Amino acid sequence: MRASRPTMTDVAKAAGVSQTTVSFVLNNRADANIPQETRARIHKAVADLGYRENAMAQALRLGKSNLIGLVTDEVATTPYAGLIIRGAQDAAWKYNRILTLVNTDCRADLESKAVEALLKHQVEGLMFATMYHHEISLPAGLGDIPVALVNCFDAGALVPSVVPDEVRGGYDATRYLIEHGHRDIGFLNKSDRIPAAAGRFEGYRLAMEEASLPVRDDRVLRLVGEQEAGFQGALQLMQQPDPPTALFCFNDRVAMGAYMALQRLGLHVPDDVSIIGFDNQEVIAAHLLPGLTTMQLPHYEMGCWGVDRLLGDAPASGNRVLLPCPLVERGSVAAPAR
Amino acid sequence: MRASRPTMTDVAKAAGVSQTTVSFVLNNRADANIPQETRARIHKAVADLGYRENAMAQALRLGKSNLIGLVTDEVATTPYAGLIIRGAQDAAWKYNRILTLVNTDCRADLESKAVEALLKHQVEGLMFATMYHHEISLPAGLGDIPVALVNCFDAGALVPSVVPDEVRGGYDATRYLIEHGHRDIGFLNKSDRIPAAAGRFEGYRLAMEEASLPVRDDRVLRLVGEQEAGFQGALQLMQQPDPPTALFCFNDRVAMGAYMALQRLGLHVPDDVSIIGFDNQEVIAAHLLPGLTTMQLPHYEMGCWGVDRLLGDAPASGNRVLLPCPLVERGSVAAPAR
Repeated sequence: MRASRPTMTDVAKAAGVSQTTVSFVLNNRADANIPQETRARIHKAVADLGYRENAMAQALRLGKSNLIGLVTDEVATTPYAGLIIRGAQDAAWKYNRILTLVNTDCRADLESKAVEALLKHQVEGLMFATMYHHEISLPAGLGDIPVALVNCFDAGALVPSVVPDEVRGGYDATRYLIEHGHRDIGFLNKSDRIPAAAGRFEGYRLAMEEASLPVRDDRVLRLVGEQEAGFQGALQLMQQPDPPTALFCFNDRVAMGAYMALQRLGLHVPDDVSIIGFDNQEVIAAHLLPGLTTMQLPHYEMGCWGVDRLLGDAPASGNRVLLPCPLVERGSVAAPAR
Repeated sequence: MRASRPTMTDVAKAAGVSQTTVSFVLNNRADANIPQETRARIHKAVADLGYRENAMAQALRLGKSNLIGLVTDEVATTPYAGLIIRGAQDAAWKYNRILTLVNTDCRADLESKAVEALLKHQVEGLMFATMYHHEISLPAGLGDIPVALVNCFDAGALVPSVVPDEVRGGYDATRYLIEHGHRDIGFLNKSDRIPAAAGRFEGYRLAMEEASLPVRDDRVLRLVGEQEAGFQGALQLMQQPDPPTALFCFNDRVAMGAYMALQRLGLHVPDDVSIIGFDNQEVIAAHLLPGLTTMQLPHYEMGCWGVDRLLGDAPASGNRVLLPCPLVERGSVAAPAR
């Protein structure tokens, strides 16, 4: 298949000129004094033959591949992967780069193999993206290639990384409920020892204390699971004799479970109970009844940032960048009835 | 950055041999008679310098890039994109190929630009993947490069393509309800003129007729929208004086809306009404209460197929391949109460 593709030699032959002349014309060399008629003949030969410059040859000549490598741990089972990839993709376009993608399925052996393969292809920079915010260890053998971490970070902050500002997100979510008049706010958190759970709780605590509201142990649940956990957690909090008037849910899946529990208890959102989520997972948040007010994880923006950091003028704001999680208002928060 | 990377010349210098000798040793040329001691010295120099063969130079030499191009219309807002990408990715690994990815955001101008860029990088084959099953027009200028279409097809079936077997999926879903004793089955279909809506209805019709059951106009709704449409559609069907005992939902999002409507009507799944979905969108189907029985769209398998078709021994079964949509049993179907 490859043998049939036209080469620069074919163009030269068809135009009746030397290969050097073709190269000069196609690369717009200013110092080459080539008659317009010859240039036209060469361009016609290019069009007739369907000649296309070999980007690999060009890359070797110019010393750059125009490829950016993206190594992800898991693109299949999370709906966010697409947003990181799309952000990286859109940014890559901006720089006329092509994104090469390897999914390692959370396997260290595949990660090494992926990095090796991408480095062999002379990628100009490497991004590592994870599907949930956590610490990673960088594989060996990266040498001096530029690296950016997206939604993850290394222990020593040796490498530039971008992650969501979980504390600020938790603070803003809680503050939003307080501003609507809620003073007794339950928190359906996750039990996992992950930055999202620790950070969002820290934000909740800060907002409660700032408003001189107590952080009660019996109002903060540390759950295992997703919708099912939200369902059980909401039942537990709302069946107390004196239940909270609002629930801050660790994520939209937990909030979906909480909705189901409230419906089972005959309680209405937001008239009886207000709910705020986290993530803005569109398939859930935009389509619950009522729509879920939630904090948006900046996956798209983090994907863009990664490529900007590798190729462009990303702000020189240190190696650990936090992006905000903006509020997305829908219909699940109102003033408390009592 | 690139200048600091060691070259084959650096290896030759460090090992005190010619570059040709280095090349012979690293490429395992059988005809080269090189003493073991020299080989060891070269391998030590490679390790000391961190030399890595340039895959672009190798590709130019061998006439193949080891890159596969994947052009997608929209990876960001659909949870299925990840499964197609992962399937393609896993298959690419199998052939020691790297996947290059371009997302065109459904814009024809970006598609042409993407194809041009990928062809310049000498990709060995091109896959076009769409996020819902529909007909596409191939961009011009593909030349003789191998092409495979994933989840889409061209009008003339000139190019190999793989799509879900919608008719068979619709038939199997309806048949499953009939086998559980249902004889009056509502169908919450979509109004869009797309292969999924037409095919799934055709399968429903075939299964009903095979069981000598009537296909009633008032049992088949053609909806606009997702969860909200399923909510309204289920209310409409179930508030009839003599409602159906089971609902076949166009997809899991429609089924999620139907669940919400049934809960509002005080009806239980599956005791009062059985529900079957389509797609197996995990974040919904696995986490509704009860879990949703549904038909799985073969996105992962289609992604694998695309790469196999480009590089491997994909079965020579014509240019239009249909993959089955297997049943995923959860808890939303039971025998009718009456």
